[in-house]
Amino acid sequence: MSLLVVGTVAFDALETPFGKVERIVGGSALHFSWSASNFVEPINLVSVVGSDYDFDEIKALNARGVDTAGLQVKEGEKSFFWSGRYHMDMNTRDSLITDLNVLADFDPILPEAYKNSDFLMLGNLSPVVQAKVLDQMTSRPRLIAMDTMNFWMDIQMAELKEVLKRVDVLFVNDEEARQLSGQHSIVKAAKLILEMGPKYLIIKKGEHGALLFQGNEVFFAPALPLEDVFDPTGAGDTFAGGFMGHLAATKDISFDNMKRAVIFGTAMASYCVEQFGPNRTKTLEHHEIDERVQDLIDLVQFDISLVD
Amino acid sequence: MSLLVVGTVAFDALETPFGKVERIVGGSALHFSWSASNFVEPINLVSVVGSDYDFDEIKALNARGVDTAGLQVKEGEKSFFWSGRYHMDMNTRDSLITDLNVLADFDPILPEAYKNSDFLMLGNLSPVVQAKVLDQMTSRPRLIAMDTMNFWMDIQMAELKEVLKRVDVLFVNDEEARQLSGQHSIVKAAKLILEMGPKYLIIKKGEHGALLFQGNEVFFAPALPLEDVFDPTGAGDTFAGGFMGHLAATKDISFDNMKRAVIFGTAMASYCVEQFGPNRTKTLEHHEIDERVQDLIDLVQFDISLVD
Repeated sequence: MSLLVVGTVAFDALETPFGKVERIVGGSALHFSWSASNFVEPINLVSVVGSDYDFDEIKALNARGVDTAGLQVKEGEKSFFWSGRYHMDMNTRDSLITDLNVLADFDPILPEAYKNSDFLMLGNLSPVVQAKVLDQMTSRPRLIAMDTMNFWMDIQMAELKEVLKRVDVLFVNDEEARQLSGQHSIVKAAKLILEMGPKYLIIKKGEHGALLFQGNEVFFAPALPLEDVFDPTGAGDTFAGGFMGHLAATKDISFDNMKRAVIFGTAMASYCVEQFGPNRTKTLEHHEIDERVQDLIDLVQFDISLVD
Repeated sequence: MSLLVVGTVAFDALETPFGKVERIVGGSALHFSWSASNFVEPINLVSVVGSDYDFDEIKALNARGVDTAGLQVKEGEKSFFWSGRYHMDMNTRDSLITDLNVLADFDPILPEAYKNSDFLMLGNLSPVVQAKVLDQMTSRPRLIAMDTMNFWMDIQMAELKEVLKRVDVLFVNDEEARQLSGQHSIVKAAKLILEMGPKYLIIKKGEHGALLFQGNEVFFAPALPLEDVFDPTGAGDTFAGGFMGHLAATKDISFDNMKRAVIFGTAMASYCVEQFGPNRTKTLEHHEIDERVQDLIDLVQFDISLVD
């Protein structure tokens, strides 16, 4: 089934306790697409870059079944640039530079062929831009997922809440869930957020794993314990790519299959953090993904017979 | 099988965002015993209190199969007292008052009948005191577990490392694992600690669950997502009580049974945090423990068939 992703395609500068890179491809739609391309094609990508972008990267994505007819290229302009620094605690980071450049007035225009995509991922963008994407769909996707962040909660909460009413799955991290709901308890926060529109909520907790909520059901997947987390940039988008890629490939949006999708997303994210940017995710082979899924099975599996 | 616990029996004063209590029974050996008494008897308890202690509490423990012949009562002296305050992030706390009182010169004396206990839990005490307990055992227990904390790493690291060589299971939290090993990565920390003596390592991460390491194997159990954590005091000792209680009851120290023990420990801890001190743990019935174990199964269970 076709999977549409709208998000950023960017350059990143990254600094972690393990190294530094001055300029590497990144952005939510790029990380998402590399990840999802392991599961399904076509992936329809809508984003914007400047003419300074690395177009070999785009060709590499095309070769993986990513359609970039929806990627706008702004001649003479610069691509979105983000620079960040991580400390030993990889769960927090400092944003050093955020140059919006072409992203400042990004107007997403969906090619006709994208407008009836079956699965839709709205990457972390202004809720106004996310709404514009939804407005262009000619048929309601089977599943609409969105990501967002505290920045939009600070400045466009009303617009964000409007988009929330129109989506099925929301991805946020624990702090964002708290801010969105005004509740410190993650369980209470989840209940309130599920009343705002989404039927499914995924709360990402970085190295502490991810929770999937639906109604009164909850599923938890730990992150794999890794010797080193080299660079967490893009891990959340890579997780979302594995999640949506698996759902689109299996055409099954039951809660049991969403659990599996969380596991595949977790496996993908565990690779993403091993190298800078999408470097590791790009070279993945199927058997490697299966190995990490098996690691996750081994990590949490136990066998108890309850007498009662 | 007999289970021996050496630790503190204390009074606590607790303050959390949900309430305050001026004086409540507590201490590592007390929380451990209430928890383990759901699984096995006898539990042999070695500790010290002053004549100010609440002896109805001791009688209640006796009624649950806890033998307190090893509980020293110091006439005219005061019991160990600890006062702490938790903020919304229940993973950290401020110690307000620590009055050692009778604990200052605690010399653990094991009754003869305790010296061949099959399972031994060394609660968080000075490693010098922990070593004194080991010295008194006339036969090597099938399993020796110990808890410790950063305080002992600061002032008695050499003594602590000597005790580590003599035990099978170490319980620490993530920060303590980092301090003990000098490694930030939990996986690297675990490898180093397993070279220090213990064959099994349990790293407790509070609301983020617990990891069990042995050799190259690792098992993870999440904490149950709870609407509110009312008071986390004693949760670690209650976890250890469920863990050791299950192992002693089943007489099985295989890795598979240790996984089950981690799950029972997690279930017990999830109740402990619902009320102040041991109030909730004391009233537990077996079907309630099983219910939480079932919740944990439902929380992490998924079904993936890998093709490869």
